[in-house]
Amino acid sequence: MLIVKAGGGPGINWDGLAADLVEARGREETVLIHGGNAVRDALAARLGVPVRRVVSPSGVASVVTDKDALDVFLMAYPGLASTGIVAGLRRRGLDAVGLSGVDGGLWRAKAKREIPVREGDKTKLLRGNRTGRVEAVEARLLQVLLRAGYLPVLCAPALDEDGLIVNADNDTAAAATAAALGAETMVFLFEAPGFLSDPDDPGSRVAEIPAAEIESRLPSARGGMARKLIAVSRALARGVRAVYFGDGRAARPLRDALAGRGTVFR
Amino acid sequence: MLIVKAGGGPGINWDGLAADLVEARGREETVLIHGGNAVRDALAARLGVPVRRVVSPSGVASVVTDKDALDVFLMAYPGLASTGIVAGLRRRGLDAVGLSGVDGGLWRAKAKREIPVREGDKTKLLRGNRTGRVEAVEARLLQVLLRAGYLPVLCAPALDEDGLIVNADNDTAAAATAAALGAETMVFLFEAPGFLSDPDDPGSRVAEIPAAEIESRLPSARGGMARKLIAVSRALARGVRAVYFGDGRAARPLRDALAGRGTVFR
Repeated sequence: MLIVKAGGGPGINWDGLAADLVEARGREETVLIHGGNAVRDALAARLGVPVRRVVSPSGVASVVTDKDALDVFLMAYPGLASTGIVAGLRRRGLDAVGLSGVDGGLWRAKAKREIPVREGDKTKLLRGNRTGRVEAVEARLLQVLLRAGYLPVLCAPALDEDGLIVNADNDTAAAATAAALGAETMVFLFEAPGFLSDPDDPGSRVAEIPAAEIESRLPSARGGMARKLIAVSRALARGVRAVYFGDGRAARPLRDALAGRGTVFR
Repeated sequence: MLIVKAGGGPGINWDGLAADLVEARGREETVLIHGGNAVRDALAARLGVPVRRVVSPSGVASVVTDKDALDVFLMAYPGLASTGIVAGLRRRGLDAVGLSGVDGGLWRAKAKREIPVREGDKTKLLRGNRTGRVEAVEARLLQVLLRAGYLPVLCAPALDEDGLIVNADNDTAAAATAAALGAETMVFLFEAPGFLSDPDDPGSRVAEIPAAEIESRLPSARGGMARKLIAVSRALARGVRAVYFGDGRAARPLRDALAGRGTVFR
């Protein structure tokens, strides 16, 4: 089984990815997980709801989600992004079904109502946050749909311990989903050639990173990349055999990534 | 099988409806279809996108959907409304899965890119419209989910003949869905005690309307009610045995409607 996580940037080549997904599904069961941050950011600007980015004490970037931001998130991810992606994939011959982590209780998150954030030299505790980390996956709905021949297309939100809707990181959720489904292979596609040893130099792609070396790469990761590396590390620890990073802007993004043209983690 | 269509008004008693759905599912397979117009109208106002209401030459009210309005529709229906409803039903013990008519190719609509509208005494042709009427239902996805024990929760949009996303009336789509699934019973819940012979008088509820008399009731129907009557008429003609209108604001909306406390159509 193959889990593909496509980023939410505006440059992702959905035509090429759709063609690759048609191929992949000929070989094995496939689940697509997608982001939507470009759509979310544009909508937040239009609604005048600020996207508040913070950095944890350990250096991992994330977005604070209050009630207003959660509403914008729902409009953007399951609303605009997912519906558009599913319709686009269907036009390209894929029998896609769009789901959020709420459906069938798929993604169960541990709520992070208070989050420590770094501001300059200080660490502050931020309250009223509506995010969570996906820690359990109820895989049955995915299994039912895969068995019936559908392509499940997933994105956040998730549900927390009290059944409340929370924003959740799609990379972390993708790793948990791969582990729960017993997937052998994961692919992360985003707007870069792979993992870069220098985030400012697109020529600094690292072709292969053994699992044991992932932690040492964290200091040179920026923004969401640190969280991606942690997700990769967890996926490998929980039975996924290989994880691939690849350039979502390529003509055939998934095929290239699986051919090792990005970064391979084992 | 039972198909329940719940309106998108702010007064629908979702707690009571959830309790009734738990009961109903003990008796028979159930599909929930919902609106979202209150959420849509509030969001359209906030975004400064006007909700443009028109009346067809035959007197049926509808909303014009240009590209901007379609985006607002997607944010409101599959985004905010569906995700919130599914999470709420799950907290009340229902294993709900949210879908739009796009998923699994569920709702196939005939696009109405140009629509005739009445303006005073004149009829004009309005172009660039992104709505359609659901004329075919690909029921397989619903059957797969029902067989696996889930409660499917559906709303527009649909896909047109070219696979493009179109706004579609949920009442019409509900009737087509009931026919495609071979459902015996349909219930429409909204913010009124049932069909009113005088739309301004809540005391004018009509307890029973034979199928043959539906057409004669059209002139006294206002707003979306005319479209509901046409949907009822189609559902009965296509094999649904009884259709119930009921007050979605009641303590037990579905139970009351099925007990004949609204309007019964046979």
